[in-house]
Amino acid sequence: MSTSPAILAVDWGTSSFRLWLMSNGGTVLAEQRSHEGMSEVAGRGFETVLESHLSALQVPDSLPVVICGMAGSRQGWVETGYIDTPADVTTIAENAVLVPGVARRIIIIPGLAVRSLSEPDVMRGEETQLLGAHLELPGGKRYCMPGTHSKWVSMNGAIVTGFETFMTGELFATISARTILVHSTSGAGGVDAQDPAFLTGVRDGWTRPEKTTHHLFSIRAGQLLHDRVTEQNRARLSGLLIGAELAGAGVRGGEQICLVASGSLHRLYHAALSECGVTVRDIDADVAVRRGLMESWHQYSNRSGDLKRA
Amino acid sequence: MSTSPAILAVDWGTSSFRLWLMSNGGTVLAEQRSHEGMSEVAGRGFETVLESHLSALQVPDSLPVVICGMAGSRQGWVETGYIDTPADVTTIAENAVLVPGVARRIIIIPGLAVRSLSEPDVMRGEETQLLGAHLELPGGKRYCMPGTHSKWVSMNGAIVTGFETFMTGELFATISARTILVHSTSGAGGVDAQDPAFLTGVRDGWTRPEKTTHHLFSIRAGQLLHDRVTEQNRARLSGLLIGAELAGAGVRGGEQICLVASGSLHRLYHAALSECGVTVRDIDADVAVRRGLMESWHQYSNRSGDLKRA
Repeated sequence: MSTSPAILAVDWGTSSFRLWLMSNGGTVLAEQRSHEGMSEVAGRGFETVLESHLSALQVPDSLPVVICGMAGSRQGWVETGYIDTPADVTTIAENAVLVPGVARRIIIIPGLAVRSLSEPDVMRGEETQLLGAHLELPGGKRYCMPGTHSKWVSMNGAIVTGFETFMTGELFATISARTILVHSTSGAGGVDAQDPAFLTGVRDGWTRPEKTTHHLFSIRAGQLLHDRVTEQNRARLSGLLIGAELAGAGVRGGEQICLVASGSLHRLYHAALSECGVTVRDIDADVAVRRGLMESWHQYSNRSGDLKRA
Repeated sequence: MSTSPAILAVDWGTSSFRLWLMSNGGTVLAEQRSHEGMSEVAGRGFETVLESHLSALQVPDSLPVVICGMAGSRQGWVETGYIDTPADVTTIAENAVLVPGVARRIIIIPGLAVRSLSEPDVMRGEETQLLGAHLELPGGKRYCMPGTHSKWVSMNGAIVTGFETFMTGELFATISARTILVHSTSGAGGVDAQDPAFLTGVRDGWTRPEKTTHHLFSIRAGQLLHDRVTEQNRARLSGLLIGAELAGAGVRGGEQICLVASGSLHRLYHAALSECGVTVRDIDADVAVRRGLMESWHQYSNRSGDLKRA
């Protein structure tokens, strides 16, 4: 497998920046991670931030850069719009936008949209992760991509037929830090995926999602009446919100779901889905986004080649 | 009806202080309102704050003061504990606590608790409002008391058989100010109870509560894809959360519910309950809490009399 640098793959989100220097065969030759997400970068300029990372790695000017994520939003570097569903996940990058006015070849991938009037939805970054996941584990019908804004995607072959976003991660952070539950849940570390309080929370959220905003307050009451401790409360809060997400996504025991996640989010969602009797197929989120970015470059350059030949 | 001052009725919550000077017949002779809730008062002392209001009204030292609300919590003035459900709403005040070490007769009413292991719950202040509501409109089976933490109470005669709290008001405030929805919902004024976006939100939250955390994100997507305006988004957010509360409380069309509320909360919940086909019996929340405080004093002083005679 070739190990000469071929491409720079970048996942540029709202609050994080991740860059991988990769060979054509997909080997990771170098990596950079920082908190220079879109909201922090706006003032300094996207090109300045990107080039500072590239000089740190001494990357030649000839290497192309492929970017997915919020860098393509209206508040980002160059707006790339959304491709409407149903959409073929293997052709999204044909609509990537070449960043104008820079020496290097830099492209940004567009997002996906559900342009429904009653339940509109958008994603930006996850479409590239999804492409990678689809290639890593072909044939999946349902993909769960947990995070600040968890995405649930339905696929038919390579066609994204629809998706739904759940605000689970952001609600967990906000509710635990900014409501009365701060007294019951703050200060603890991560949630243990095997904690009975987490798993009971998942089951309660999944089987009785309509009770969620009541179950949240009950965490506070449990601390007052039963002296429940912070770790337990935090685990239950996490379980309730993830369980309600699973209910909203219509998860049923016995079905198969592709879980695209890494680290602690992977542990929590794998345990939650298993608790509901789901057969989980695991795909590492970092592997998926790198493969998606690499494939996006091939799609884009093939298409550009086609256009030149036409 | 006598109009000579007989009692001082105080509702002292986390973020607000309300005091009424009342006659024995229930006439309001004077009123004081401020933001000196428990969290603000802690440093200055409860007695100092109370006496400053009483001197403003030139109230004689002989008048008793009856207080309900968070002043009776562990972080309050004097801890009054909780009476466990099932509980007779007309005898709660027999357990009121006389504030020690002050010249004036001041009593604080205890709260109510559901001491269940799986779904514990507490209220403090609403038990007094409930007493007043029960006396104003006897025979109600279900009481809805909306607010920061909405309470739903089941009653059998004067017995509180159980209750559930929903974090609706606090979630509305937090989600609209502290999540990605700030871009879609902030800056607008109050929500119009007849706004179709509010009523559609109620219906969606009530019929599909499991989708709530998805519907929340969809508000953001609707702004991005369909240019929906702040008023509309804010109304839908409010409707979704109230609708999910109604689903959690098990509201069904055709049933009768006593709504204890004032002002804009009353308008929103009355419209939401009507949208779900509920027959609403309205009780003004201020009237209810004043009547409950007055009645609590009678209960307490009769009981004290009994004790003295015993």
